[in-house]
Amino acid sequence: MIRPAFAAWLSDTNDVTQIFLSAGQIPGLINMAGGLPDPATWPIPDLAELARAAVANHPRDALAYAPIEGLPALRDMIAERFSAPGLGLSRKNVLITTGGMQALDLLGKVLVDDGQVIAAQSPAYLGALDAWKPRRPTYRPMRLEGNDFSPEAALQDAQFAYTVPNFSNPTGRLVDLDQRRALVAAAHATGTWLIEDDPYGTLYYDGIPLPRMLTLAGGAPYDGPVVYLGTLSKELAPGLRVGWVIAAPGMIRALVTAKQGSDMSTPGLSQRIALEAFGSGLTDRVLPATLALYRARRDALCAAMTDHLGDLYDWDTPSGGMFVWATARDANLNTDHLLRVALNHGVCITPSSVFDPEGQNRRAIRINFTLNDEARLTEGVKRLATATRAALD
Amino acid sequence: MIRPAFAAWLSDTNDVTQIFLSAGQIPGLINMAGGLPDPATWPIPDLAELARAAVANHPRDALAYAPIEGLPALRDMIAERFSAPGLGLSRKNVLITTGGMQALDLLGKVLVDDGQVIAAQSPAYLGALDAWKPRRPTYRPMRLEGNDFSPEAALQDAQFAYTVPNFSNPTGRLVDLDQRRALVAAAHATGTWLIEDDPYGTLYYDGIPLPRMLTLAGGAPYDGPVVYLGTLSKELAPGLRVGWVIAAPGMIRALVTAKQGSDMSTPGLSQRIALEAFGSGLTDRVLPATLALYRARRDALCAAMTDHLGDLYDWDTPSGGMFVWATARDANLNTDHLLRVALNHGVCITPSSVFDPEGQNRRAIRINFTLNDEARLTEGVKRLATATRAALD
Repeated sequence: MIRPAFAAWLSDTNDVTQIFLSAGQIPGLINMAGGLPDPATWPIPDLAELARAAVANHPRDALAYAPIEGLPALRDMIAERFSAPGLGLSRKNVLITTGGMQALDLLGKVLVDDGQVIAAQSPAYLGALDAWKPRRPTYRPMRLEGNDFSPEAALQDAQFAYTVPNFSNPTGRLVDLDQRRALVAAAHATGTWLIEDDPYGTLYYDGIPLPRMLTLAGGAPYDGPVVYLGTLSKELAPGLRVGWVIAAPGMIRALVTAKQGSDMSTPGLSQRIALEAFGSGLTDRVLPATLALYRARRDALCAAMTDHLGDLYDWDTPSGGMFVWATARDANLNTDHLLRVALNHGVCITPSSVFDPEGQNRRAIRINFTLNDEARLTEGVKRLATATRAALD
Repeated sequence: MIRPAFAAWLSDTNDVTQIFLSAGQIPGLINMAGGLPDPATWPIPDLAELARAAVANHPRDALAYAPIEGLPALRDMIAERFSAPGLGLSRKNVLITTGGMQALDLLGKVLVDDGQVIAAQSPAYLGALDAWKPRRPTYRPMRLEGNDFSPEAALQDAQFAYTVPNFSNPTGRLVDLDQRRALVAAAHATGTWLIEDDPYGTLYYDGIPLPRMLTLAGGAPYDGPVVYLGTLSKELAPGLRVGWVIAAPGMIRALVTAKQGSDMSTPGLSQRIALEAFGSGLTDRVLPATLALYRARRDALCAAMTDHLGDLYDWDTPSGGMFVWATARDANLNTDHLLRVALNHGVCITPSSVFDPEGQNRRAIRINFTLNDEARLTEGVKRLATATRAALD
């Protein structure tokens, strides 16, 4: 009995994922590879009460099929939170998604046919590359830090451009105001949709948040080219799987058609909890402690790196987000190989190849600082230094 | 500014969906079009307490990213509930999905490339057709009730075959035991995956449930060609968005890869509630009252149809599920047109065209009996009789 072949995109596998899965079994491993929040940041008693009240007081919202677009009250609240002078949003601009990941899946579905071009900030978020694999796109890398980067040339004739302006995953880089303006101008000039994926927008540890590209695009009522993606995963808790898209009404309608055939609707219980968490001020009350915790951990990681990795890697201290991106000084270091060696030394990081649509970059690593406490971060860095020297031998 | 075109499948629209959406605004409308449960069947206080306890007592399960495959304890419970003599299931056979709809989306992603063949029971569930549109399949209709139906010819060289053996949506038809055996034998002989979509498997109002094709395929450990889809939507509440796939481990692994790029994981809070609802016996306690309610409504609908529609339509009384399928006696009735007339008479039903991959069948209608009470069902049938006569004028 020969079974039918799986779809072609599935054969394009990356064995790093398998390595990560097996890494979960290693005792004592210090995992600095993922992008996980510290559960200590979750307001558990508050969320337990919100969950109870959602079902008891709003059973139709929590237990019936929600509208495909999301609960109207939550869409209104998102529209209100993100409106700004010159930016007029209404519920027609908002779609609730099952986490930020689903927004990426839906965008691939509505915008990409086989072989079409996605212009993507490079290196790019691994999850976005995963989400778009079934659409079999062609990638045009956008190296925003290059001196010769031309936003208009990058966006021309692409189906969309993908960016993470706040503390990009994986590099932790902040796209500056001038470049945000240039990208928005290029989107207006070319007509290309400009995706602003913003999971880390609340995680600013230094300085004042830069304006969103959505806000820079402006318009009231909003009908612009920026498609903004938000999520509750970093701000409150990822397991609720609540995200949102803010976009032109025509884009929202297309995404709604795709969402209907993807999961019908996001769980109403999660949506109701999100609505109450925003409305009661819970998210705003939780944030300062989260920022203080993660700021201290970023500082501890970077101090340990300076002590132990200064001769091996170059990096910039990120002003927000969850990651430090470190590039090996020695061009001979292959960080796919380093990952295997590091696991033998009891530490796990993410190699750069998985963030490269072409899988070529093997000289850098992404290090997470939000999950582990300061002592473990320091110990992890020491192990990483030993592993790096071993990998270079 | 010209924006990039949306993906090709999006242009393949069906204006019946738009008509349904606008129907929601009509005052006094009796909606017999959807497939909604009666909220009176939901155990609201129990679910409120389960929601609170899930967050308070299992915060990591409820609030962290769940494993892509689903919570291990829930996968174990599903494996145990569906194991049978000769059918040995373990968690490797189980994937938790964000509702039954997501399972259909994931199957399209992992099995269908542009233009490939899906053999589908015809008429077919509208939601499945929606889910697979982005994969642009070719359909081979399977008319199981035809005398010349050959399961082997139907399955040969298809990527998969899609069936709803228990009270098919839209026809309410029960696939008999001989035909289940023949389909399973054909799946074994051809190697083609056989999808057993079973949202209505608990809603038997008469007689004893027939064995699942999954059970007929058998095997311990299970590695067979049947891919079984279950959901909590009809058994408990749809808003939780918890479904499951039971399949060969190789199929589960492929679906996990697709799910990672679709929504990362199903909300842990919903999964935890599902686990406790099964484990505490809540689902089993709720079921008898649900069956009694829906059985009485089915009987009321069919009695009213006999009184008022007997000269206009032919139908079989379904022995379970949510729908009666009625075919017009007069071949000149166009049920797309009837829908518009019916809305003017204050009643909504679903025309057959939306269940036909080719959109050709315009002679039948699907009538739901689970949402409305007996008086409203009777009044809806009277309105439908008047509307049908008007549509034939």
